[in-house]
Amino acid sequence: MNTRAISRYPVPDMTELPEDIRARMLEVQEKAGFIPNVFLALAHRPEEFTAFFAYHDALMLKEGSLTKAEREMIVVATSGANDCLYCIVAHGAILRIYAKDPLIADQVAVNYRKADITPRQKAMLAFALKVALESNTIGDEDFAALRAHGFSDEDAWDIGAIAAFFALSNRMANMIAMRPNDEFFTMGRTPKSK
Amino acid sequence: MNTRAISRYPVPDMTELPEDIRARMLEVQEKAGFIPNVFLALAHRPEEFTAFFAYHDALMLKEGSLTKAEREMIVVATSGANDCLYCIVAHGAILRIYAKDPLIADQVAVNYRKADITPRQKAMLAFALKVALESNTIGDEDFAALRAHGFSDEDAWDIGAIAAFFALSNRMANMIAMRPNDEFFTMGRTPKSK
Amino acid sequence: MNTRAISRYPVPDMTELPEDIRARMLEVQEKAGFIPNVFLALAHRPEEFTAFFAYHDALMLKEGSLTKAEREMIVVATSGANDCLYCIVAHGAILRIYAKDPLIADQVAVNYRKADITPRQKAMLAFALKVALESNTIGDEDFAALRAHGFSDEDAWDIGAIAAFFALSNRMANMIAMRPNDEFFTMGRTPKSK
Amino acid sequence: MNTRAISRYPVPDMTELPEDIRARMLEVQEKAGFIPNVFLALAHRPEEFTAFFAYHDALMLKEGSLTKAEREMIVVATSGANDCLYCIVAHGAILRIYAKDPLIADQVAVNYRKADITPRQKAMLAFALKVALESNTIGDEDFAALRAHGFSDEDAWDIGAIAAFFALSNRMANMIAMRPNDEFFTMGRTPKSK
Amino acid sequence: MNTRAISRYPVPDMTELPEDIRARMLEVQEKAGFIPNVFLALAHRPEEFTAFFAYHDALMLKEGSLTKAEREMIVVATSGANDCLYCIVAHGAILRIYAKDPLIADQVAVNYRKADITPRQKAMLAFALKVALESNTIGDEDFAALRAHGFSDEDAWDIGAIAAFFALSNRMANMIAMRPNDEFFTMGRTPKSK
Amino acid sequence: MNTRAISRYPVPDMTELPEDIRARMLEVQEKAGFIPNVFLALAHRPEEFTAFFAYHDALMLKEGSLTKAEREMIVVATSGANDCLYCIVAHGAILRIYAKDPLIADQVAVNYRKADITPRQKAMLAFALKVALESNTIGDEDFAALRAHGFSDEDAWDIGAIAAFFALSNRMANMIAMRPNDEFFTMGRTPKSK
Repeated sequence: MNTRAISRYPVPDMTELPEDIRARMLEVQEKAGFIPNVFLALAHRPEEFTAFFAYHDALMLKEGSLTKAEREMIVVATSGANDCLYCIVAHGAILRIYAKDPLIADQVAVNYRKADITPRQKAMLAFALKVALESNTIGDEDFAALRAHGFSDEDAWDIGAIAAFFALSNRMANMIAMRPNDEFFTMGRTPKSK
Repeated sequence: MNTRAISRYPVPDMTELPEDIRARMLEVQEKAGFIPNVFLALAHRPEEFTAFFAYHDALMLKEGSLTKAEREMIVVATSGANDCLYCIVAHGAILRIYAKDPLIADQVAVNYRKADITPRQKAMLAFALKVALESNTIGDEDFAALRAHGFSDEDAWDIGAIAAFFALSNRMANMIAMRPNDEFFTMGRTPKSK
Repeated sequence: MNTRAISRYPVPDMTELPEDIRARMLEVQEKAGFIPNVFLALAHRPEEFTAFFAYHDALMLKEGSLTKAEREMIVVATSGANDCLYCIVAHGAILRIYAKDPLIADQVAVNYRKADITPRQKAMLAFALKVALESNTIGDEDFAALRAHGFSDEDAWDIGAIAAFFALSNRMANMIAMRPNDEFFTMGRTPKSK
Repeated sequence: MNTRAISRYPVPDMTELPEDIRARMLEVQEKAGFIPNVFLALAHRPEEFTAFFAYHDALMLKEGSLTKAEREMIVVATSGANDCLYCIVAHGAILRIYAKDPLIADQVAVNYRKADITPRQKAMLAFALKVALESNTIGDEDFAALRAHGFSDEDAWDIGAIAAFFALSNRMANMIAMRPNDEFFTMGRTPKSK
Repeated sequence: MNTRAISRYPVPDMTELPEDIRARMLEVQEKAGFIPNVFLALAHRPEEFTAFFAYHDALMLKEGSLTKAEREMIVVATSGANDCLYCIVAHGAILRIYAKDPLIADQVAVNYRKADITPRQKAMLAFALKVALESNTIGDEDFAALRAHGFSDEDAWDIGAIAAFFALSNRMANMIAMRPNDEFFTMGRTPKSK
Repeated sequence: MNTRAISRYPVPDMTELPEDIRARMLEVQEKAGFIPNVFLALAHRPEEFTAFFAYHDALMLKEGSLTKAEREMIVVATSGANDCLYCIVAHGAILRIYAKDPLIADQVAVNYRKADITPRQKAMLAFALKVALESNTIGDEDFAALRAHGFSDEDAWDIGAIAAFFALSNRMANMIAMRPNDEFFTMGRTPKSK
C-alpha cells in the first residue's frame, strides 16, 4: 500500500457521488478550505457514509450540556487509546480550534491526567475511556462518579455514546489506513486569547 | 439498577415515538413475535436510533459474498471478545436460525477456533477479531490472509465494518446495561436438517 | 484434527477400561441419559481420571454453605474467563438445571455483573475470578469482602478451590480440544417455576 | 495475616490426621528431613489433600519420556508465570537436585529463553507456558512444534497436564498464602558434577 | 499539583546551580531560544542530572550509522508506547526539525506502521518497541530481522540502548509530571523543502 | 548465541579498557572476589559504561532515608516485573547480604506482597512497581500513599528514580542477554543473625 494514499480502498470521483454526499463535501470544503479525507474515504460506500455522518451529527452537533470542545476531547482521548492516527490528528485540530488552545489536543491524546483541563473534564474522560476500553465493567459506581461532578445521566449517555461511536470510527480508519489531511497537523496551533 | 430492567435509561412508550420508529418496531414484532430490547432501549434517543439502524442495515442486509449466517458469526465472535451479553444472546439466536445449527452460536461466542465452521470462516473471524481488538496493527498481511481464502477486498471491508459497527453496539449495550429478551436465549436451539 | 472429534486423543473403548471407571460412566449415563465427553476423553489416562474426579467430587459434592447452583456459577464464570467451550457448555447446562433458571448460565458465562443473581453471589464470583485471573494479588481485603457478605473463611476456600480446580480443567479441555456433547447445549433451557 | 504463618488457614496437628495422610508426611519427612508446608497446609482438607497428591503423583512420578528434571522445569516455569512463591521455591529446589545444577531453577523461573537448557527443552516450556497462559489458542501448530523436537503426542499430554495441574496448585498456594519452608531456598545450591 | 507547574518538585534557581549545569543550560538556551523543562526539572538533583545528560549524549550525539532523525524516531515511538507527554512533545519537535518533515512526529508517536518512513525504519522501530515493551522475549530472530534491513549488531545496540534510556526518561517524566515547554508543541510544524 | 556467553556482544580485554574503567573493575573485583558481568558486558561501550555507573552510584550510594537493603528491594522487585535474569540474580545476592536475610530476595522478586518485609516497605514497592509498569497513571494519590508511611517527597523521587533506572538496566540486560555470574546465585544464602 502506498502510505501517502488516502485509503487502502478506491476513492470515488466527486462526479460519481450521490448528490447529497457531494453537497455535504462541498459544504465542508467551503467551511474548512479542504475536504477532510474521512469524507472521501468513506464515500466508497455511500450508504454507510450516510449512516455514519447521520450518527456523527446526532452525537456531535446535538444540544446538550457538553460543550463542543468537550465532545472533541472525548474523541481525542479515546482515539489516543485506540492508536487511531486519523482521528487524533483531525479531531485534535478541531479540538484546538473549539477550545482556542494550541496545546490541549496533544495533552489529551497522550494522557488526559496531565492535560490543562478541569477535574470535571478529567472525570468525563475517565468515563469515556472506560467505555472505550472495558465497557463490560461499567457499573452504577461509574455513573455516580459522573454525578458527583454535576453530570446528568443524559450527559453520561452523550459521553459514552461518543466514545462508542469513535470505537467504530477508529477501527474503520485503522482498517482502511485512512490518512489525515496534511492541513490538520498544523491547524489551530497558533495561540489565541481565550 | 434493577437487573431485570431493559436498560439503565427510560424506555419510551410506543405512543410517544416518531412514526417511522414505531413502524419499524411493529414490523419486527410481527416477524419475530416480540420487540427486541435494542429497539426499545435505543428509542430513548430517536435520532441516534435512526442512524444506528440505517448503519446496521447497510452492513447486515446488503448484497455481497458473505452469507447472512457469516455476518452474524462476525457479530457473535466480536461481541464475545467484548463480553456483551445482549449481542451474544440476541445475535446468537439469529445465527442459530440463519445457520440452521443449534450449536454454532455458543461455539463462536466462546472460541471460534473450536467451532464447526470452515477454515475460510475461521480466517474471516480472525480478521474480524483483529479489527475488534487491535485494529492499529492491521496491515497488508491481514488482507493477504483473507485473499488466500478467496475473500475480495470488498469482503474485507464488510468483515471489518461489521466488527467496527459492533464495537459501537457492544459498548452502548454494556454502558446502558441492555438486557436481552428472554426469548432470544432459547430461539433456534432445536436442531433442523441443514 | 476433526473438529467433531471428542478429543485430540484416542477415546478408549468402554470394554478396555478399569472396572471402577466403567462403573462411574454407566452410573452417570443412567442419570443423564448420555456419557459426558469429559469422562470419555479423560479415560485416556485412567490414573489421572481417577484423581480428577476424586478432586472434583471433593469440591462439588461436599457439604457446605454454598448451594450446588452457586458452585456451578463459579465453574461457569471462571470457565468463561478462560474461554473453555467444554466447561461453559456442560456446566452451563448443569447450572440451569440446579438453579431452575434457563437464562442464568449465559449471563454468568459472559458477565456476572449483568446476571440475575444476588449481590452476595456477585461478591462470590468476583473472588473466584480474582483467583482465576490474578491469584498473586489476593490479599486480606479479598477475604474481608467475602466476610462482609456473610461468607466464612471455609466458604472462601471452597470458592477459591473450585476456581483453582477449573483452572486445571479448562486448560486440559482446551489443550485436548474436548468437545461438549450436543445434549448439553439445550439442556435446561425450558423455564420452570422456581 | 502473620506473614511467617504457613497458611492463612489452620494447620492440623499430626495426631488429628487420617492415618494415610500422616503416613505420607512421615515418609516425606524421612526422605527430605522436614515436612514441606504444602502437606501441612493442604491437610486442612483431607479429602482434597488425597486427590491433590494422587493427581500430582500420576503426573510427576509416572513412566514416560520426560525426565524428572524436565517435569520440574515445567513446574518452575509455569509457577514463575503465575508468580507463585511456594511453587517456585519448593520445586526450584527439587529441580536443582534432579538436574544436579545449582543455577537452573532461577533461570527457568525468570526466563526459560535465557536458561542453560536444550532447544528441545525450550520448545517443551514454550508449550507449557501457552497452556498456562492462553490455552484457548492452542492449536495443531503447537503439537507440530513439539513433534519437530521429537516429542510424541503422549509427551504433549504430559507437558500440558503438568502445566494445568500447577495452574491449580499455584492458585491454591497464592490464595491460602502458603509459605515455602526455609530449607527449600538453599537446597541444591552447591554445584555437583553432572 | 498545579498542572501548569514544570514539575512536582522544586525547580532550582539558575544561580544556585553548579557551574557546569548552568553552562549547559545557557548553551541550550542560546541554541533553542529557551530552556527545555527537562533541564530545569532534573536540576533538582544535580548529580543525577549530570549522569542523565552524559548518558543521553553518549547515545544521541555519537557517531554511527543511524541518522539523528532516526534516533529521534526511536525516542518518539517508544515514548508514545509509554504515554510520556514530555518526551513525545519535546522530541517530536526535534524530530520534525531533523527530518524537515512537519508530519512525521505525530505519525510515529501514534503508530509507526502508518508513518511516511521507509521499511528499514519500520524494522528499526519494531525492534525498539520490543525492547521498550517486552525485552524479555528478545531473541536471535530479532537481531536477524534487523540484519535483513542492513543494520549491523552495533546499530542494534544503538537502537535498543536508546529505547532503554527513554524507558528511564519516560518514567522519570511521568513520575515528576514534567511539563513540556509550550514552544515544543509548535516547533517545526511549517513544511520545508527536504 | 552461546547461552553461556556473558553477552551477545564482544567483551573487551581488560588491557584495552580506559584506565578509569579498569580501575573500577579491579576495585570491585577486590571487594567481591570476582568481576560482575555487568561491568564486562557494558565495557563494550566505554562512554555509556561511564554514564551508567555514574547514574547508578548517584541513586544507589547517595545519602538518604532509604536503607541500602531497601534500595536493593526496589531493584529486585522491579527486575522481577521485567523478567530480567541478570538483575534479579545479581541484585538478589546484594539484597541478601545487605538485609542479612537469605530468604528475602526470592520473596521480593516473585511477589513482594508475600515477603517478610514491613507494611512501609510494601508501600515503597507498590510505588516502585507502578513507576515500572504504568508510570502514566501516577498521580497525587500515589505520593499521598507514600507520605502515609512516613516517606518524604524526596524519598519518593529516590524510589521512583531507582525503578526508572532499572527500567533501563533491565532492558539493556535483556537485549544483550547478559548472563549473571555463577557466584551470585549462591551468595548470601547462609542465614546470619540479624
